Amino acid sequence: MCESNVYLKKDNKEELIMENVAAISPIGNDTFILKGLLGESMEVKAIIEDINLMGHKIILKAL
Amino acid sequence: MCESNVYLKKDNKEELIMENVAAISPIGNDTFILKGLLGESMEVKAIIEDINLMGHKIILKAL
Repeated sequence: MCESNVYLKKDNKEELIMENVAAISPIGNDTFILKGLLGESMEVKAIIEDINLMGHKIILKAL
Repeated sequence: MCESNVYLKKDNKEELIMENVAAISPIGNDTFILKGLLGESMEVKAIIEDINLMGHKIILKAL
């Protein structure tokens, strides 16, 4: 399975905000919707800081 | 393995620009560097259009 954990970086600290994320899509400017394996979703105001597919880790930077 | 194929969307057509991408990082504004499994890299001026981790497909939109 290739889902990732998504972290939100704020004040230089990374917080795990969602596990097993299956898809990420932008909605509007600087907002992303994260979609989980089980159909759950979360909206985050942030920009992409890093996508590490091999490490299953995606870091968003809070705005 | 969880690397993805990266497509660049231009004039509503999607073109495969890199296979087996291991990581994607922004460098500056609206520019991303794609890093491949074998150490290869590619710079693309684009924004994120969609990240489908389960489908191993990432779509960037050309600027």
